[in-house]
Amino acid sequence: MANFGGHAIPGSFFLLLGFWLTVKYILQHYWRTSQPKGRQIMPPFSKRMHYLEGGCLIFGAFVGIMVEQFVVDGPHAHLYDTANHSWVKLMNWQHGTMYLFFGISGSNCRQHASKLVPVGVDRLSLSLALFVEGFLFYYHVHMRPPLDAHIHSLLLVPVFIGAACFMVEVFIKDNIVLELFGACMFILQGSWFYQIGFVLYPLRGPVWDLKMHNNIMFITMCFCWHLAVALLLVACTSSFVWFTVKRFSEKGQDIEIGMRNTSSKTSSQKALLEESDEE
Amino acid sequence: MANFGGHAIPGSFFLLLGFWLTVKYILQHYWRTSQPKGRQIMPPFSKRMHYLEGGCLIFGAFVGIMVEQFVVDGPHAHLYDTANHSWVKLMNWQHGTMYLFFGISGSNCRQHASKLVPVGVDRLSLSLALFVEGFLFYYHVHMRPPLDAHIHSLLLVPVFIGAACFMVEVFIKDNIVLELFGACMFILQGSWFYQIGFVLYPLRGPVWDLKMHNNIMFITMCFCWHLAVALLLVACTSSFVWFTVKRFSEKGQDIEIGMRNTSSKTSSQKALLEESDEE
Amino acid sequence: MANFGGHAIPGSFFLLLGFWLTVKYILQHYWRTSQPKGRQIMPPFSKRMHYLEGGCLIFGAFVGIMVEQFVVDGPHAHLYDTANHSWVKLMNWQHGTMYLFFGISGSNCRQHASKLVPVGVDRLSLSLALFVEGFLFYYHVHMRPPLDAHIHSLLLVPVFIGAACFMVEVFIKDNIVLELFGACMFILQGSWFYQIGFVLYPLRGPVWDLKMHNNIMFITMCFCWHLAVALLLVACTSSFVWFTVKRFSEKGQDIEIGMRNTSSKTSSQKALLEESDEE
Amino acid sequence: MANFGGHAIPGSFFLLLGFWLTVKYILQHYWRTSQPKGRQIMPPFSKRMHYLEGGCLIFGAFVGIMVEQFVVDGPHAHLYDTANHSWVKLMNWQHGTMYLFFGISGSNCRQHASKLVPVGVDRLSLSLALFVEGFLFYYHVHMRPPLDAHIHSLLLVPVFIGAACFMVEVFIKDNIVLELFGACMFILQGSWFYQIGFVLYPLRGPVWDLKMHNNIMFITMCFCWHLAVALLLVACTSSFVWFTVKRFSEKGQDIEIGMRNTSSKTSSQKALLEESDEE
Repeated sequence: MANFGGHAIPGSFFLLLGFWLTVKYILQHYWRTSQPKGRQIMPPFSKRMHYLEGGCLIFGAFVGIMVEQFVVDGPHAHLYDTANHSWVKLMNWQHGTMYLFFGISGSNCRQHASKLVPVGVDRLSLSLALFVEGFLFYYHVHMRPPLDAHIHSLLLVPVFIGAACFMVEVFIKDNIVLELFGACMFILQGSWFYQIGFVLYPLRGPVWDLKMHNNIMFITMCFCWHLAVALLLVACTSSFVWFTVKRFSEKGQDIEIGMRNTSSKTSSQKALLEESDEE
Repeated sequence: MANFGGHAIPGSFFLLLGFWLTVKYILQHYWRTSQPKGRQIMPPFSKRMHYLEGGCLIFGAFVGIMVEQFVVDGPHAHLYDTANHSWVKLMNWQHGTMYLFFGISGSNCRQHASKLVPVGVDRLSLSLALFVEGFLFYYHVHMRPPLDAHIHSLLLVPVFIGAACFMVEVFIKDNIVLELFGACMFILQGSWFYQIGFVLYPLRGPVWDLKMHNNIMFITMCFCWHLAVALLLVACTSSFVWFTVKRFSEKGQDIEIGMRNTSSKTSSQKALLEESDEE
Repeated sequence: MANFGGHAIPGSFFLLLGFWLTVKYILQHYWRTSQPKGRQIMPPFSKRMHYLEGGCLIFGAFVGIMVEQFVVDGPHAHLYDTANHSWVKLMNWQHGTMYLFFGISGSNCRQHASKLVPVGVDRLSLSLALFVEGFLFYYHVHMRPPLDAHIHSLLLVPVFIGAACFMVEVFIKDNIVLELFGACMFILQGSWFYQIGFVLYPLRGPVWDLKMHNNIMFITMCFCWHLAVALLLVACTSSFVWFTVKRFSEKGQDIEIGMRNTSSKTSSQKALLEESDEE
Repeated sequence: MANFGGHAIPGSFFLLLGFWLTVKYILQHYWRTSQPKGRQIMPPFSKRMHYLEGGCLIFGAFVGIMVEQFVVDGPHAHLYDTANHSWVKLMNWQHGTMYLFFGISGSNCRQHASKLVPVGVDRLSLSLALFVEGFLFYYHVHMRPPLDAHIHSLLLVPVFIGAACFMVEVFIKDNIVLELFGACMFILQGSWFYQIGFVLYPLRGPVWDLKMHNNIMFITMCFCWHLAVALLLVACTSSFVWFTVKRFSEKGQDIEIGMRNTSSKTSSQKALLEESDEE
């Protein structure tokens, strides 16, 4: 949808997704580092988190497809106009296709929780969703004014880097740096959608000259500032989540330790019994 | 061969190959996960499966080369026409070269079963076969109408991603996600060959306008739908194979357990004897 | 800044950074290889070295940004000139953005020393700083005379290879070959900045013909010579540092061994006590 | 040197290098697989082999540089002609630069044998030599007739794939598939040099039409046939070397086994003594 709202909606979606992934990865990382070495089970909230994430993605994708199809000037589920021998509103169909793949990715998140699907499929499907988005955008920008084409092609940078990032995560698991970098690319993508909206459909003030070379140079630099801000946001969010969880878990630990002291004798005897059983 | 059949034949070949690889990888994965940790031998049917696969590839490649050479309008093993100072039917020779590399790949599958060739050569040769196919197609599409060039260059996406996928498999072995993704790329390639056939040589209805930009945009989106369908097909096939094998092996296990109970005493004594022999 | 000095300053900066990284990596490598296998602690000087490195990067970036902003013909912190409806000195702003990312990278070096930030963030941020530098330079070279564009685009080779190199280091740690290669790319970049300065703003002698094809061919070859010199410099520096450290540490070891002989009895008793405590 | 000989000399050089690497890798692989698990020392002939290889590379590079400089129409160590304000014979200087990097690579092979240089430097320098060769060739082919440019740019395929291959070998060591693939790329490069010579400077028969599109199509396909032949050559050479070594070592083993039988009692007693010492 070629207006400000049509860029603000996916922008907000990707921003939320980026922040959510940051929070999720930090929680998982905290759980991993705070666990004793032997216990490698997943946190209890993990399954519910994945269900929630998958459900949100599917719901978002479904709403997105419906909106793209049944807005006033949408294709209303018509693909080919046999009367005029032409395709109907291909732009909306393409956006719907992008949403579809995020929905597929969401359905894999759900399955991930049920242990049937091999580990890594959720990352692969997220990577594919980003790849398809970038793939469609790549042929999207053909034959537009220079600034319009440039600002959209800059969007491909976080999209394809994000796709590569999640693809690598299929093989290298539980690397917090890689995971946060992937989340950062989502935040960058979201904020850049807003930037596209502000530049192409300014809410107030004069319109931008889409052919001036200096505007292209400024936008290129502006993209780097967005990257810096996205890095800062990820750093702040993860520090905040980390210290919040730490404070809460320390409180919990104090109580737990108190309880342990009372029951330590019994439990150590139990442990001994178990060990002798195992032998 | 520039007609519908000339695209349907390789399409069917790649579809079959994709489904076959899906089934093979799922069977191997089931065997790996169901085995106790100590036993790492290959399944008994594996050797025969590899021979069959290799044989089929070699046979398919041989038939393909022969057909390309000796069809009515083929080069009949003539490469250079000294009378006219021109090359004879280079298109057919190029297709024959592609088949040749799939044949080479098949011959490595056979050797794989005989343990002489280092592990990974079969994947490398399959990767090379795809690379050569993509390499020749890349210079194939020169100087054609826009839609024709575009639809053929989209074929390069599954070809090169597949080549990269099998190349990575040389180093990262037994990763089921990667293996199924490679199989998925074959299915996508196969179904896309059919799509090319339907678009360039429509069986009925009007011919496509090869220069209309909207057609190119639709085809780009259509490629993503093919990808979605290919993912769905791989998911369904592998679920179906997985549950079928599981049901059968559980039946088998019940019988086996029954037999074990009868013979457990003897076998445990045997095991003890074997262990003492090994020491 | 379009003069010789404007290329000599970043050139010197990158040369220094390259030599510093060479020295640091060799010291760390010496420490790793000379330590007994059990002890995997970092050297005592490492924390201080990282603080120093981070501090220098931040200081350098800060000075760089200030200079770019407040030189005589700089933008003086004005970004948009509302009177003329034009951007103010975008070149200086772009250079400032590049410095900013090296500053961010420096701040991560400092945090690295405090163990809070996950290992690899410092490499990732250095990689990002190089990526941003290359990204901005890529759009920098548009619409310039051929030799000018070519000599700047050759700069992208060490920049992007360096970025890839540090990105790989996030995953493959403590690989001395990779580390030294990254340092070598910095030295190459530094010396190439000087070469750009000498070619575009010759201190004496005739100016270069920016459109002659032979000049482009010579510059391409000259780049390879710079690479050879950079490799040689890294090899010499690392050999020098290695043998210097070895001679010093051998002297120290002789003393240490002497001391150990005296105190060996006591320490072995201590060790036994500690072991029995641990059990 | 723009004649048949100027392409046959590097072609022979790369063919020889490719065969040599095949033989070396197969010998090392045989040694690795035939050794018992505990012994991981390098074979006794390895050090000498590396010295020989390094020496040959340095000698070849030195001869190459000298020939390029001091042939009749060479630059005779003059780089810039101040009288005419032009560069002297840049082509010869560029070829000399390529040889230089293979010489650097050779000097690292020598050092590899003396254990001072970290493992992987020899591969890295070989990778760099190939990268520099490809880098110079890439800017070489500018402004030539289509077939000439195409046939030279096809040379970049084995050059860059080879460079990538040896770069990966820095990290993944002793992978025989990867090593033989690298050797295969050298053989392909060598045979392609001959092909370039035959096409551009035919020894007899008519000259090729450098602008006919069909010629370009044939050359592309011909490249694939060279690849197939190179794969076949590597497969034959390695099988031949493998079985030759096996037959010789089995003869040796029979003698050794005979000797062992005589001395087995003593040695088993010795082994027991050693084990009790270690405990």
